[in-house]
Amino acid sequence: MLVSALLMSVGINSCLCVLLFTLYSVLRKQPHNYEVFLPRRLAAGTSKRRRNKVARYIPSVRWIWKSWRPSEKDLMDSSGLDGVVFMRMITFSLKVFLFAGIIGTFVLLPVNCFGDQLIQINYADWSANSLDLFSVANLKTRSPWLWVHFGAIYLVTAFVCCLLYLEFRYIGLKRIEHFNSSRAQPQQFTILVRNIPSSDGSSVSETVDRFFTENHFSTYLSHVVIHRTSKLRSIVDNAKKLYKKVKHKKPDAPRVRKTPIVRFFSRKDTPEDHYEKVLHELEQNIRLGQAEVSTPGKEVRAAFVSFKTRYGAAMALHMPQSINPTYWLTEPAPEPHDVHWPFFSASFMQKWLAKIVIVFACLLLTVLFLVPVVLVQGLTNLSALEYFFPFLTLILSMKIVSQIITGYLPSLILQTSLKIVPPIMEFLSSIQGHICHSDIQKSACNKVIWFTIWNVFFATVFSGSAFYKLSVIFDPKEILVKLAVAVPAQASFFIAYVVTTGWTDTLTELFRVVPFMVSYVKRSLEPTDDNELVIPPMRYHRDTPRVLFFGLLGITYFFLAPLILPFILLYFVLAYVIYRNQFINVYEPKYDTGGMFWPMIHYTMIFSLVLMHGIAIGLFALKKMELATYLLVPLPVFTLLFNEFCRKRF
Amino acid sequence: MLVSALLMSVGINSCLCVLLFTLYSVLRKQPHNYEVFLPRRLAAGTSKRRRNKVARYIPSVRWIWKSWRPSEKDLMDSSGLDGVVFMRMITFSLKVFLFAGIIGTFVLLPVNCFGDQLIQINYADWSANSLDLFSVANLKTRSPWLWVHFGAIYLVTAFVCCLLYLEFRYIGLKRIEHFNSSRAQPQQFTILVRNIPSSDGSSVSETVDRFFTENHFSTYLSHVVIHRTSKLRSIVDNAKKLYKKVKHKKPDAPRVRKTPIVRFFSRKDTPEDHYEKVLHELEQNIRLGQAEVSTPGKEVRAAFVSFKTRYGAAMALHMPQSINPTYWLTEPAPEPHDVHWPFFSASFMQKWLAKIVIVFACLLLTVLFLVPVVLVQGLTNLSALEYFFPFLTLILSMKIVSQIITGYLPSLILQTSLKIVPPIMEFLSSIQGHICHSDIQKSACNKVIWFTIWNVFFATVFSGSAFYKLSVIFDPKEILVKLAVAVPAQASFFIAYVVTTGWTDTLTELFRVVPFMVSYVKRSLEPTDDNELVIPPMRYHRDTPRVLFFGLLGITYFFLAPLILPFILLYFVLAYVIYRNQFINVYEPKYDTGGMFWPMIHYTMIFSLVLMHGIAIGLFALKKMELATYLLVPLPVFTLLFNEFCRKRF
Repeated sequence: MLVSALLMSVGINSCLCVLLFTLYSVLRKQPHNYEVFLPRRLAAGTSKRRRNKVARYIPSVRWIWKSWRPSEKDLMDSSGLDGVVFMRMITFSLKVFLFAGIIGTFVLLPVNCFGDQLIQINYADWSANSLDLFSVANLKTRSPWLWVHFGAIYLVTAFVCCLLYLEFRYIGLKRIEHFNSSRAQPQQFTILVRNIPSSDGSSVSETVDRFFTENHFSTYLSHVVIHRTSKLRSIVDNAKKLYKKVKHKKPDAPRVRKTPIVRFFSRKDTPEDHYEKVLHELEQNIRLGQAEVSTPGKEVRAAFVSFKTRYGAAMALHMPQSINPTYWLTEPAPEPHDVHWPFFSASFMQKWLAKIVIVFACLLLTVLFLVPVVLVQGLTNLSALEYFFPFLTLILSMKIVSQIITGYLPSLILQTSLKIVPPIMEFLSSIQGHICHSDIQKSACNKVIWFTIWNVFFATVFSGSAFYKLSVIFDPKEILVKLAVAVPAQASFFIAYVVTTGWTDTLTELFRVVPFMVSYVKRSLEPTDDNELVIPPMRYHRDTPRVLFFGLLGITYFFLAPLILPFILLYFVLAYVIYRNQFINVYEPKYDTGGMFWPMIHYTMIFSLVLMHGIAIGLFALKKMELATYLLVPLPVFTLLFNEFCRKRF
Repeated sequence: MLVSALLMSVGINSCLCVLLFTLYSVLRKQPHNYEVFLPRRLAAGTSKRRRNKVARYIPSVRWIWKSWRPSEKDLMDSSGLDGVVFMRMITFSLKVFLFAGIIGTFVLLPVNCFGDQLIQINYADWSANSLDLFSVANLKTRSPWLWVHFGAIYLVTAFVCCLLYLEFRYIGLKRIEHFNSSRAQPQQFTILVRNIPSSDGSSVSETVDRFFTENHFSTYLSHVVIHRTSKLRSIVDNAKKLYKKVKHKKPDAPRVRKTPIVRFFSRKDTPEDHYEKVLHELEQNIRLGQAEVSTPGKEVRAAFVSFKTRYGAAMALHMPQSINPTYWLTEPAPEPHDVHWPFFSASFMQKWLAKIVIVFACLLLTVLFLVPVVLVQGLTNLSALEYFFPFLTLILSMKIVSQIITGYLPSLILQTSLKIVPPIMEFLSSIQGHICHSDIQKSACNKVIWFTIWNVFFATVFSGSAFYKLSVIFDPKEILVKLAVAVPAQASFFIAYVVTTGWTDTLTELFRVVPFMVSYVKRSLEPTDDNELVIPPMRYHRDTPRVLFFGLLGITYFFLAPLILPFILLYFVLAYVIYRNQFINVYEPKYDTGGMFWPMIHYTMIFSLVLMHGIAIGLFALKKMELATYLLVPLPVFTLLFNEFCRKRF
């Protein structure tokens, strides 16, 4: 890749950014877009529907300022600790890449430029130089300048580790502060007990009562046994659907704020005989269902047990309750909004097997994901398209169409299939046996991180080289050297990737493309329909891996191709502004994991560092710097020890 | 190796066994050997010193009967749960190899014999056949008879897993029963708290008191802060030494049962002026030392905290005490006899780093142990000896001497260096930061197990083949096939190993060679000296790995060379009789880990199984049985899952 090509790409994407920022500032002022761009403020009633029609169409940058202004405390109040952790991940990356960027741009870049392994720099025409001139590939074998890179690696590792430690400590303190400052929540007094052993003759409720009265006499308060209510639930769902139907029939009926069912029973809305009949049937069914649910046969061997004090609950949570550790399993009770019901009845064995199966499935999906994608991409060549869709022949014979199809379709297919991964992983996590949504999200986030690292980073690095063979991957002697060959070779690709995919990704996040289009289509179909306002929750399992991936790119490439650093830095600035804006205007937390995403972020950073060290060791071995190679070996060891220390300390 | 050679070896070793058993039955009846062979009964006063001089010299087998007779309950009472676990390991092995032995001898052995890969069996002269005829090597590539081995592998794995599960459950129940039946011990009411944070102005004792009064108000009873007493201890040790000296000076002084120091102070024993002066000095020093110890400067940031109930202690133990998990670390208090003092003052970081360093040291020792041993063995050739010890030239020129030296010295050096490994590992574990001897022993046991497996099994298997290179070992595709070539090649060596080293090892255990010799030498030097009777504790970290190693040999070789099974079975029968005898007559437990050796035994068995599966997969691949190879792959996976299940369940 030449400098000119990079400049062109940067130019185009910068213009696009400015254009879309301007467009956004106009679009968000249109009242009919409020529910896409400002649902939180709409719900809070703080978005004034401005009368001035002209001002609406004048672009402004005030929204950037507004999103910059709120303090961390405000963010904590509005988006919970998870939002704070997410934003701190971005500020952490900003700090890291500011430091690495200064070293990279002012030290490593000049050093690389004045190497003479490749052809000399063309000073007359800068833009005709290859990007490789700015990378470490331009330094000769055994060049003493490589010691500068060596020093930079040690320096950046030390900086990142210090920052990671401080950040982990800060978030730990925030967690405690958050816990202390919030009011006592019901879930803090409650634990979930599962796999209650059956004792002959007595119901689950009696067993629980006896057990806790006996063992936690002084603190035990009460308990609620969980019942299977799927049948009742489906009846209630039916009633809700019917309610919606009736409501649409009589849009002018007075809209009293009542819960759907109560509203349905209050006869007023169902003048027609047909609905009255259905209503009666439903009422009957619900009564039957309610009666059935309270029978012992519908009891699940799990219960929420409440204690008089939080201390009592914590005590019961941490003590092993039974001689057989597969019975009386205790877990902290999730927040009421956060409960995921399907797995309360799963036994210890079922849950464990489900977990193993899902882990295997995820591994398989992660490793083999590219195979079907590449196959489908193969189908998009022109002859295949003409074969399957003969009527397209005429269009396909046009040169520009064929260029677009062969050029964009394969990468479009890859990008689209990558977009469906977070929902797939979320689904897999949801059948893994978790009992609350936040656990599902954490688990999905973890899966998506590894998926992204494998299928974007390693797949790109290894494609082209005959590397995608397991035999080579498991050979530890070779792998570092092969990595050191393959990773720098993809430097220009990843620089372009940051500029294109990275920057546009944040912009699609800003524009909320899918909800925007859905709302547009809805509006054009049913212009008068005033739907209930839905405030979406932040999907951390989709966004965290994305941001982390750019961190990984930056850390692994900072000494190979320091040119990537300014673009990464810009990406994080964009992400900072845009995600803050979204937290303030769009997303509302439904439940709080209490900052439990941080360990994941921490581990990914550690992985990035160790990967970078591995590549560096391979590179120094390639450049025949024996001493530097051996001196680098302790670095990953120390990094892993530091990680182990953090695990113990926090 | 020919059958005749094996028969010869078996014959010689069997005769040796019978001979030594007979000799033992005579020796143990000699009163002056009582303190070597029957110290427990001597201490308990149950060994009647028989008057009949003739009966003493008549060999008998009564001791075998006596050691067979006691029930498990008796063993539990006399040797604690650890002794029971050790014996159950042997009975477990007996069961496994009885089952595997029946399959091996009556099914696999005939199948192997009638294969015709190698030359035909010489029916006329059985003893001239090679041992390989009885191994799986005698079956042709793609022989359908290999399916019999396939079935046997599945069958034995299933049997071992079932037995492991039952055994683990049994021992779990025994642990609980043991806990319930024993009286409440002081250590059950106490926890050890370490890394107590320093708070300004108050002593450790005040800090502890404040913390537990505040947080465990209802159950907290009292505490003891630990002090540095090394100086005082050395003075007391000096006093003890002096006491011994004085005692030897006046052997006819009346031996009142007093503690050494009290006895020393009671003036009666020190009529001479010199001793009186020394005594005064010591008394002064001890007073000074006692005064110094109680100053705050000698306080260690650790304390034993006692609670009113066992429940209270358990509660405090399981609750995280502090926001910073490196402070207020809680551990169950060890038994009073079991405390290992040196590491009470170690901080969290120090302990953690010590552990990492020791683990690395052990790994290094384990992997590189053979290098110096092989080098030393190289020095024992004749020319080197003649060079270093010129005066030996005459003796070395004799043929028989040179044969013995070249034949036995290298293996003697190896065996001797293997004998010093358990003490080395115990020493390494003791500086790892454990706070009780039983933990040290457990940790050392673990280290010795892996050391033995690596340095006896793998070193033997890989020696000869150019296998001892890391590059090959880390290549997973090749390793199974290479194992499948190398392991069967050493079958005859290991059969001979079981017959020679295995059987004689148990006999040296029976004879207690070192203590026997020491006592003999002492007796001949100071015939009148009546030393205090020392009852040795069982050294589990030395014996458990030894027994487990023969289990590993049996499991890995049962389908490769079923001929090994009868000899292994005999080994375990010997071990059963001899260790029971030793538990009853020799070893007395000093402290009880409460059966915590079982998990180690369990994991080693699982490792043996998985190793066996790996070799089997390699072998079937070699014999070109594709289907069988693939059908075997789930077996190690299921075994590991079973292991994981057991970890969770127990």
